[in-house]
Amino acid sequence: MSAQSSTRMRGTRGARRQRHRHGGVVTAQRQAPAYITRKIPWYAFVKDDALEAIEQQTDKLLHEVGVEFRDDPAALERWREAGADVKGVRVRFPDGMARALCKTAPSEFIQVARNEARSTRIGGKHQIFAPVYGAPFVRCLDEGRRYGTIEDFRNLVKLTYSLPWLHHSGGTTCEPCDVPVNKRHLDMVYAHIRYSDKPFLGSITIQERCEDSVEMARIAFGAETLENHCVIMGNVNANSPLMFDKVASQAIETYCRANQGIIVAPFILGGAMGPVTTAAALAQALAEGIAACAYSQIIRPGAPFILGNFLSSMSLRSGAPTFGMPEAVMSNYAVGQLARRLGLPLRCGGSLTASKVPDAQAAFESADSMHSTALAGANYVLHSAGWLEAGLVTGYEKLILDADRLGALHTLLGGMATDENGLGVNAYEDVEPGGHFLGSDHTMANYENAYYEADMSDSESFEQWQDQGGLDAAQRANRRWKQLLQDYEAPALDESIDEALLAFIAKRKESMPDAWY
Amino acid sequence: MSAQSSTRMRGTRGARRQRHRHGGVVTAQRQAPAYITRKIPWYAFVKDDALEAIEQQTDKLLHEVGVEFRDDPAALERWREAGADVKGVRVRFPDGMARALCKTAPSEFIQVARNEARSTRIGGKHQIFAPVYGAPFVRCLDEGRRYGTIEDFRNLVKLTYSLPWLHHSGGTTCEPCDVPVNKRHLDMVYAHIRYSDKPFLGSITIQERCEDSVEMARIAFGAETLENHCVIMGNVNANSPLMFDKVASQAIETYCRANQGIIVAPFILGGAMGPVTTAAALAQALAEGIAACAYSQIIRPGAPFILGNFLSSMSLRSGAPTFGMPEAVMSNYAVGQLARRLGLPLRCGGSLTASKVPDAQAAFESADSMHSTALAGANYVLHSAGWLEAGLVTGYEKLILDADRLGALHTLLGGMATDENGLGVNAYEDVEPGGHFLGSDHTMANYENAYYEADMSDSESFEQWQDQGGLDAAQRANRRWKQLLQDYEAPALDESIDEALLAFIAKRKESMPDAWY
Repeated sequence: MSAQSSTRMRGTRGARRQRHRHGGVVTAQRQAPAYITRKIPWYAFVKDDALEAIEQQTDKLLHEVGVEFRDDPAALERWREAGADVKGVRVRFPDGMARALCKTAPSEFIQVARNEARSTRIGGKHQIFAPVYGAPFVRCLDEGRRYGTIEDFRNLVKLTYSLPWLHHSGGTTCEPCDVPVNKRHLDMVYAHIRYSDKPFLGSITIQERCEDSVEMARIAFGAETLENHCVIMGNVNANSPLMFDKVASQAIETYCRANQGIIVAPFILGGAMGPVTTAAALAQALAEGIAACAYSQIIRPGAPFILGNFLSSMSLRSGAPTFGMPEAVMSNYAVGQLARRLGLPLRCGGSLTASKVPDAQAAFESADSMHSTALAGANYVLHSAGWLEAGLVTGYEKLILDADRLGALHTLLGGMATDENGLGVNAYEDVEPGGHFLGSDHTMANYENAYYEADMSDSESFEQWQDQGGLDAAQRANRRWKQLLQDYEAPALDESIDEALLAFIAKRKESMPDAWY
Repeated sequence: MSAQSSTRMRGTRGARRQRHRHGGVVTAQRQAPAYITRKIPWYAFVKDDALEAIEQQTDKLLHEVGVEFRDDPAALERWREAGADVKGVRVRFPDGMARALCKTAPSEFIQVARNEARSTRIGGKHQIFAPVYGAPFVRCLDEGRRYGTIEDFRNLVKLTYSLPWLHHSGGTTCEPCDVPVNKRHLDMVYAHIRYSDKPFLGSITIQERCEDSVEMARIAFGAETLENHCVIMGNVNANSPLMFDKVASQAIETYCRANQGIIVAPFILGGAMGPVTTAAALAQALAEGIAACAYSQIIRPGAPFILGNFLSSMSLRSGAPTFGMPEAVMSNYAVGQLARRLGLPLRCGGSLTASKVPDAQAAFESADSMHSTALAGANYVLHSAGWLEAGLVTGYEKLILDADRLGALHTLLGGMATDENGLGVNAYEDVEPGGHFLGSDHTMANYENAYYEADMSDSESFEQWQDQGGLDAAQRANRRWKQLLQDYEAPALDESIDEALLAFIAKRKESMPDAWY
């Protein structure tokens, strides 16, 4: 039963790859596609009649309970004009109204990257991975846990750029806490443009920061490109249950008015910001998402909108939020179905964990969360690498380890070949029962691309592993990110664009006193 | 986006459970079911026409290439009598013959346990988890890696008995290397009967050890029970490609003749014991499984047979076997479909990894392997907990960590409630938009059973975690298994049965000189 036999393949890609080893890790550059086009079927985790029951509950919430839009009178006025029932800050939707408004949102769109080859297709059968978002802390093996800095932020942009299985540069990969709160969005957007050529997210925390983000995208891509293409997106949360504050509504307004994309993700900790049962929390999240999408389409019909879902369970022991648990796994599978029925691109899941360190807990939780995220068909996966400690920490080693598993998901989503070669119809011409396939024609013809090569997995013998220092996965990842930063080369950026961005940033910073909270 | 809010629920089960803490871990006794009855739909990973193509390749292998049965003339004679085309040791099957013989194998059966409440249903929608099998080494944090002993074996039986999410005691959970090779099967079978009341596997390495195993089961359960019920099973490998030696054929013969169960699992490292493409390796595994099942039904029509599958990929760098990789994940999903089409119970997957230690690699690989195993509908999952280092090592901490995730899979396989309560139809009667569900009627009515409680996941705040020693998952698991062994109480065993077993073992041991290899 045990897999004691270890076979050697000589003169193949394995040997060639070996030459690229640095410090015990392989740095072979692989070029992943700009986005995944899924080839495996959907998983019908929830049956159709149950999906309809969830949708009925969603519609009931929209119609009877309604959604509040607080601190944004302009939003309430728009809802009134659109025919909603507005009482105070509460907006109720006549039957079918919110869903009808959603129909102008594209089911699929392209976010254009600075490097056109990295432009991503979002929606339908297309899936892309972006790193962790929003952590105030960073962690690495050398220094432990500490507040993030702008240097960390730049490092994380560079690492995300270097990691082949991350398609998108993300947004606030960590908070650069050494930069004033009111100025850091400028440095973050600049870092995404300057140190990467993958698509990215702008800032959302206050409306003028949204405007700055869009303006910097306009400088980088040109006004005409910005008007006609999605080149930047914002990512906001609902204030669940069933409430949006002006951070959300004004971010939707700013990004969508400029024809840019917006992601709206209810963050629901069941039993707190939503019901404690999973189907009920899903129905609420869907109501919040539909209301947000409808609002985005009032702002500008056709603006790219991504339906978000972020459900979390909690520990019965302490009430602390838990991640990678089966209830969240189920919600991933179910929301994939619900988003497809609605015809909207989906953001859900990620490599989520409550663990403080990149240990077995972190990996177990992240893997179950991400496996279901990928199978569920999530089109835009924020937090797909680097998340630790319920999202409070971006882990350097965790980023590397997660990204390596994202490569495995590329293979899984590519499906299993069942053509004549895949079936091995001719594989037995030079192999007899009791023989072996080492070096057989079929093996040699398929060997190089047969298996996903996980750079961060050590599959050598115990003795070889011990000889190489007996490092665990986190220790190997530590070597890896340092090597990647050392090898990093910035993508080209037109000098006049760089100058214009720096001038814009300087002018904006001049206009503001430093604010630290 | 980050989940900073941590809510507290007082006066609930959370508080009550806290009282059971010992050394930082919770030891609440939960009673899992004797087996899982799956409530979620199957995942149609491979489309029907591709499944048919795989089956055609399987049938072609059975018909044209054939399967060899070596060193077992009686088996060849039986095949001849059954109408197969036998040339030398090669058996070829006229079209449809092997599949027709398989039809008498039950699609579902019960393995009776010493404690009737723990009897497991195997097949159909039922799924059970058993620990790692066959490792010569053990590993724990205190002592590192060393050869297994009979004391380890007994510890692992006791731990498996104590862990609620393991339904089955397994077989050779580690090799007791301090007992002579020709005698250790007696001590192992005895330990399963004496220290647990969960169902178990017997020995297979030589025919007389199969006979001893069955005889000990006869003593424990009585001759009449043994004749009419499956109370013990054997687990054997094919010698892929397309070959069985007498270890396999005589184990099938011995167990099935006594109306006991047999599991036959081709272990295929793609590119060595089978083709390097996944669909081709699956077709071969299916041919080997069908041949073995047909043989079991020649021995005794109706004997319980479990179709096994154990496909592994390899590292392009070194040719070493890899686990938890996407090709094996795909094979799990696909073989689940193939087994259902054949109408046979399935063994596949497990919590597999090539990692030497219970680190992030071990958990990532185990989780992807086990997630797909569970979703694929594997009915009997060997290696579902404790496996390390490509199966060479049983890890004490890994056993604990894996078993905790098996609990999560119980919840996942139980599906998502979408009845009125599940949908939260009345959840908004005492909660307004912008409010919260802490302590709401719907929350209180559902709280205790809303979420899976993962004992080995630390979801507390960074400060709490640090105050409790800042332990990683493996360190917490180390405390846990020691606590479980300390708390262990043996299940009752009829004294006359115990005496009869010990007398049988003494007599058998007397008849043999010690053999150490």
